[in-house]
Amino acid sequence: MPDADSMPVLDLAAPSIDITRQLCDIESVSGNEASIADAIVASLAGLDHLEVTRDGDAIVARTRLGRDKRVVIAGHIDTVPVNHNLPTRFETIDGIDYLWGRGTVDMKAGVAVQLKLAVELVDPAVDITWIWYDHEEVSAELNGLGRLAEHRPDLLAGDFAILGEPTNSTVEGGCNGNLRVELRTFGTRAHSARAWVGHNAIHDAASILAVLAAYEPREVEVEGLVYREGLNAVGISGGVAGNIIPDECMVHVNYRFAPSRSGAEAVDHLRGLFPGIDLTVVDLAEGARPGLDAPLAKDFLAAVGGTATPKYGWTDVARFSAIGIPAVNYGPGDPLKAHADDERVALEQITECERGLRAWLTA
Amino acid sequence: MPDADSMPVLDLAAPSIDITRQLCDIESVSGNEASIADAIVASLAGLDHLEVTRDGDAIVARTRLGRDKRVVIAGHIDTVPVNHNLPTRFETIDGIDYLWGRGTVDMKAGVAVQLKLAVELVDPAVDITWIWYDHEEVSAELNGLGRLAEHRPDLLAGDFAILGEPTNSTVEGGCNGNLRVELRTFGTRAHSARAWVGHNAIHDAASILAVLAAYEPREVEVEGLVYREGLNAVGISGGVAGNIIPDECMVHVNYRFAPSRSGAEAVDHLRGLFPGIDLTVVDLAEGARPGLDAPLAKDFLAAVGGTATPKYGWTDVARFSAIGIPAVNYGPGDPLKAHADDERVALEQITECERGLRAWLTA
Repeated sequence: MPDADSMPVLDLAAPSIDITRQLCDIESVSGNEASIADAIVASLAGLDHLEVTRDGDAIVARTRLGRDKRVVIAGHIDTVPVNHNLPTRFETIDGIDYLWGRGTVDMKAGVAVQLKLAVELVDPAVDITWIWYDHEEVSAELNGLGRLAEHRPDLLAGDFAILGEPTNSTVEGGCNGNLRVELRTFGTRAHSARAWVGHNAIHDAASILAVLAAYEPREVEVEGLVYREGLNAVGISGGVAGNIIPDECMVHVNYRFAPSRSGAEAVDHLRGLFPGIDLTVVDLAEGARPGLDAPLAKDFLAAVGGTATPKYGWTDVARFSAIGIPAVNYGPGDPLKAHADDERVALEQITECERGLRAWLTA
Repeated sequence: MPDADSMPVLDLAAPSIDITRQLCDIESVSGNEASIADAIVASLAGLDHLEVTRDGDAIVARTRLGRDKRVVIAGHIDTVPVNHNLPTRFETIDGIDYLWGRGTVDMKAGVAVQLKLAVELVDPAVDITWIWYDHEEVSAELNGLGRLAEHRPDLLAGDFAILGEPTNSTVEGGCNGNLRVELRTFGTRAHSARAWVGHNAIHDAASILAVLAAYEPREVEVEGLVYREGLNAVGISGGVAGNIIPDECMVHVNYRFAPSRSGAEAVDHLRGLFPGIDLTVVDLAEGARPGLDAPLAKDFLAAVGGTATPKYGWTDVARFSAIGIPAVNYGPGDPLKAHADDERVALEQITECERGLRAWLTA
């Protein structure tokens, strides 16, 4: 049992801005989520309207009101490594008030809003499954949401899901898929003083780079949202020694593809772009369609206001999409500040997100 | 003093083929030349017609007959690492007799012929400076011939030089120069989910590879010999992580240039091919003109017979060329077998080289 004196305590009656600060000041880099998970569980103790389940450092808190619909609202509690950006501080820049520090954007402000509403909303319009989970910022096989889906798929059941990833408190639907492949060219080694005896594999990679440099990424409309794709070399390597004609060159390519395309179709697209080139898939994550045609989603969008936009980065909404639950991203913070050393969230966005979620869940 | 029982002994009265085998079976990978140098010094002891000087593991043996002309004949005694190819063995392939094993081609057959003639020719037509030296197969600053040129430049003096590097026992004049540069492109990092925020440095390298792939190397006639150039990527690297737009890409380029071009002109040529690209010279060795217009060279070519051809690879003839001594390559062995695991010299070439050198030195 943790030492009561050293265990951090959360005050969920405080404003969500203050809860954000409390959460951020509990360092929880991936793999070190035990303290913050302990604090969350402790802060939910004694609430009759929630059934709390813990799996590792993931926590599920569910209402059981017998409503027609159930909504899953989730957020991860880990962060990328701290880089001299804790503890948090308040800043004002160009007249805008911010909370600065690791986790403020990605994504403890979102978690703070969720925790505040989990305590407050004893009689929401829909049943709610709140999920706070670990290991989102590291390799996919460690992901706490993925682990929950395997251990307790029943806990993920729902009609609609909202992931609190930073979206500037607007609704971002679905996400692009993510494919990484290694393209290889092969030649014949020779001494570079007699290059004509060999065949230069790096020179053969010229055609690959030419295709990448000339490629015009698509903009694809999916259920009313326009997804912007991207095709990029993210690595290249080749060479044996300064006097050897190289017999192999590898170009590591990352394709972010709109959710109108399946992973298999994305692979086929790359095979078509690089005919005859050796291609190995090293990572493939399906995209997620925005799901904004679901009735609950339409209500949600109407309640929080604004216009939905596409999510470009891959997020865990794809895990919900994969099990048939429409899901969107909705959380405070500018995604361009996620992982940045000067990570900071505009305080107004925290309040805005709290207002939007409350309006919908109590409508 | 070495243990007399363990010190290898050379029998320089044996045929040059047998001397080759004796030399090869004394392992002398660069840095481990002491035993073979000891054996060479011991085998020359008591020869009145030679003045022997040792510098490290380099040995200089000079006649002092007061001839009009002095010829320098040199060979290195080290090899690249052994790879299960010692001790040597005799092989017959398609009716041709070979000595197989590390050093047979590069270049102990040449050294064997030189040692045999050094002992035999007590009254040659020209004064001769025989040089056998260490550390040719490793970085240039360790080179034994370079060290001698610095410690005892007087010992390198001469009117013409012959280096016993493998040339299939034909005369190969001069050598190509050797330039290595690093070309770099620079971009702006960004998350690959929002590639348009950044700038991809690897894509910018497309233009470099396109130039290299399309480049048609020159064939340049210098003093009657046609040198074949080569321009090749010998390495490429770039990339930060699988989800990051890379901000730097480096292409390592090797230019082998005809001796009609100076090193500075070679650098200018590359700057012209890659305008605006960041270029760093990492290695530059001047070429050597063939020197076949020197009277001694003409006599030599007439004596050994055959047609002179250019040497493509860089050799230590350039060190003689740099100090104003015309120099050619002439030695047994197919240069394409140098450093190969199946390194082997045709026995006939050893005898042919011995015959050619003897004919000229006694004419």
